[in-house]
Amino acid sequence: MAESNQNRYRLLCFIVSVAMNIFFVANLCISRKALSWSARAAAEVEAVASISCSGHGRAFLDGLIENGKPVCECNACYGGPDCSQLLPNCVADADSGDPLFLEPFWMKNSGRSTVVIPGWHRMSYDYSDNSYISQELEKNIRRLHAITKNAVTDGRYIVFGAGSTQLLNAAVYALSMNMSSPVKVVAEKPFYPVYREQTEFFKAKQFEFHGDASLLRNGTSNTVENVIEFVASPNNPDGNLKKAVLEGPSVKTIHDYAYYWPHYTAIPAPADEDLMIFTMSKLTGHAGSRFGWALVKDKQVYENMIQYIQIAEMGTSKDTQLRALQILKAIHGQKIFHFAYKTMIDKWEKLSEIVSRSNRFTIQEIPPLFCNFFEEVRGPSPAYAWLKCEREEDSNCSAVLRAAKIIGREGSLFESDDRYVRLSLLRSQDDFDLLLRRLNDLISKEKGAQTI
Amino acid sequence: MAESNQNRYRLLCFIVSVAMNIFFVANLCISRKALSWSARAAAEVEAVASISCSGHGRAFLDGLIENGKPVCECNACYGGPDCSQLLPNCVADADSGDPLFLEPFWMKNSGRSTVVIPGWHRMSYDYSDNSYISQELEKNIRRLHAITKNAVTDGRYIVFGAGSTQLLNAAVYALSMNMSSPVKVVAEKPFYPVYREQTEFFKAKQFEFHGDASLLRNGTSNTVENVIEFVASPNNPDGNLKKAVLEGPSVKTIHDYAYYWPHYTAIPAPADEDLMIFTMSKLTGHAGSRFGWALVKDKQVYENMIQYIQIAEMGTSKDTQLRALQILKAIHGQKIFHFAYKTMIDKWEKLSEIVSRSNRFTIQEIPPLFCNFFEEVRGPSPAYAWLKCEREEDSNCSAVLRAAKIIGREGSLFESDDRYVRLSLLRSQDDFDLLLRRLNDLISKEKGAQTI
Repeated sequence: MAESNQNRYRLLCFIVSVAMNIFFVANLCISRKALSWSARAAAEVEAVASISCSGHGRAFLDGLIENGKPVCECNACYGGPDCSQLLPNCVADADSGDPLFLEPFWMKNSGRSTVVIPGWHRMSYDYSDNSYISQELEKNIRRLHAITKNAVTDGRYIVFGAGSTQLLNAAVYALSMNMSSPVKVVAEKPFYPVYREQTEFFKAKQFEFHGDASLLRNGTSNTVENVIEFVASPNNPDGNLKKAVLEGPSVKTIHDYAYYWPHYTAIPAPADEDLMIFTMSKLTGHAGSRFGWALVKDKQVYENMIQYIQIAEMGTSKDTQLRALQILKAIHGQKIFHFAYKTMIDKWEKLSEIVSRSNRFTIQEIPPLFCNFFEEVRGPSPAYAWLKCEREEDSNCSAVLRAAKIIGREGSLFESDDRYVRLSLLRSQDDFDLLLRRLNDLISKEKGAQTI
Repeated sequence: MAESNQNRYRLLCFIVSVAMNIFFVANLCISRKALSWSARAAAEVEAVASISCSGHGRAFLDGLIENGKPVCECNACYGGPDCSQLLPNCVADADSGDPLFLEPFWMKNSGRSTVVIPGWHRMSYDYSDNSYISQELEKNIRRLHAITKNAVTDGRYIVFGAGSTQLLNAAVYALSMNMSSPVKVVAEKPFYPVYREQTEFFKAKQFEFHGDASLLRNGTSNTVENVIEFVASPNNPDGNLKKAVLEGPSVKTIHDYAYYWPHYTAIPAPADEDLMIFTMSKLTGHAGSRFGWALVKDKQVYENMIQYIQIAEMGTSKDTQLRALQILKAIHGQKIFHFAYKTMIDKWEKLSEIVSRSNRFTIQEIPPLFCNFFEEVRGPSPAYAWLKCEREEDSNCSAVLRAAKIIGREGSLFESDDRYVRLSLLRSQDDFDLLLRRLNDLISKEKGAQTI
């Protein structure tokens, strides 16, 4: 009887074991079927992503190869094969507007934001409707503006471009095509240097850069004619919400809304202008993708812009459009806005606290405002600090900072006074932490500065 | 004894079964580990790729959605939910140079050409060397030219752009910055219409389009000054290898080598010019990616071009550069050149055969030539047929074709005679098959034409 039981028990074990084998083989077949030609690429990217760079860098698929695998690319001021070494005496870089503060968000949310592009994806110049514009991406952009309540998209055409950079210039060409030349291109100072650089570089016959917009307003004549005004709101460098300075029947305005997102400002009302330009760089942090869009009310201006994009480069990369679609789909959950706002306001508060202890430096004031997106009154969280050196002798503020190992962007680049310096708060946490440390050291040396 | 053997046998089976279980569990753990956050995206793309479109279309990840999944996008002249219906009386489209003849190659080679882009990939404006140019991609481009023997890259700088389209214009700006204005921009006719369109559209103060290059050569004065000449070789539309018409100390040449690949022409020698422009569109067929490069000898011209790309759009999409890298890695096996050449020569021979039966139409002659890549004398396989209507009354050749349901591009667009029409051979096999059928119908109606 005991032996019989033992046999039965052995048989049961055997059957269970064989059943498990059948299950595993079936499972293997199914998963083999689920991933075939994309498996190599997926395994490759995960292997690269798993290379440890100590939280101060990352390895990329297209990075330089050493010993058969890509090397860590370290944040500024970090070195060593795994980016673990803090370099001594390193300069705090607060210069460019590289939006790497959003990188940790995408590291945490890689599942939803990853995209796989097969070799045969969208080889044609056109989409199937013969346009250069992905309809699915356009839909997602309209949906996004409805969620963030930052722009009216009804009755607007959409043009895609290689970042807002390309669209700014496309807009100047498009508007000036229907104006009497020479058209004067202006912006109220302080303003983003690219407005002048582009207009001057392309040396077009029909328009010319004409400097500060306020000078035209204050002129002897009240009639301002054939003018294109750039208005960035929030403004780069100082973060203030702005309106056009000039108006009139032959004045056209290009509204640069690169920073008009809940990350950087309260959204008091949806923007409802004739020509509005947005960019993914400052929304999701994907500056390297070069993707932006314009919302355009006038059909002729829209067609002119489309013609510009066609002649300049036959549409915007379809690889980029596919990636932008995936990234935008991944932010519909809205977590990014909370992450970005929290990060930026935290930076602003820390910086404000340090500067408030100084008698030598001040930063701009931005009033609290009701935000329609967060549905509450909220304080400032700008992309840049617009720092002023208050001492008589500190007329070159960026030199003062450079001596203290801080690199900012000098005021004169924005056609303002060199008593001002723009400090970027968009960069990585590493860059910001070092900026705070260097600034703290500088301010602590001040006579009369409050000590911590 | 027999029972003991039986027991031993049972035990062995059991051990094998358990061992297999252990193997499968281990296997499962490893494969789980190998694919985590990229699994969703990989499964999604494979599901889309598996949608059947009868070989006359394909579904894309970013296609329009119906019933929760992307719909088939059919080739011209095919319809129905799975692209299986041939539309009656459909017009054969031989108009644009959309290089879809290469799509089947990438469908077959999707394993090596697929790329996975995580959400955090290359968010910065720059690569880690502060440039806009991926060093790995640059290396692969130089390697490619060494393999195809079509261009000398030693002592050349490389500039990336959004297709050759952007680089053509960047080159005109870059060259004219160091010349006395006004610079005359010319090309020998027949020539690619974009040379004129771009130069005229951007309306720069320092240069002007001046039409046919030969007119300058035949002028009364022998001194040609401040001229930029575009030279496409093989030429678009007629496929002939070309040299510059003009020369002299203040003559600069932009060599457009979009078609200088073994697909379309014999490679008699590596091109060794000062400014050479290439594009992925006609090499791998990825026109939608908008990626091209220039090989530039002069440092100042190179720096001017980099400045153009910087000011126009702050570099070329990093998503596109990553994909271009993967695609170029996938062609090092050189299979693509054999596939492309075979496809194109097959098309040319079939078209030639039909046209040879006609007294009404002729196509260009391209002499056989020794090819350094294939290491043999080879016949023509051009991207376009340059069809001529020989009858006196057929002065509008494209109208003659249109009446026979064939769309080509009229000769006058290339500043040639409307007695010529350019027929694109780059498009899908479906487009080409229909072109052959329509042409055969047209020629069969000719009095005196040879019957098949």
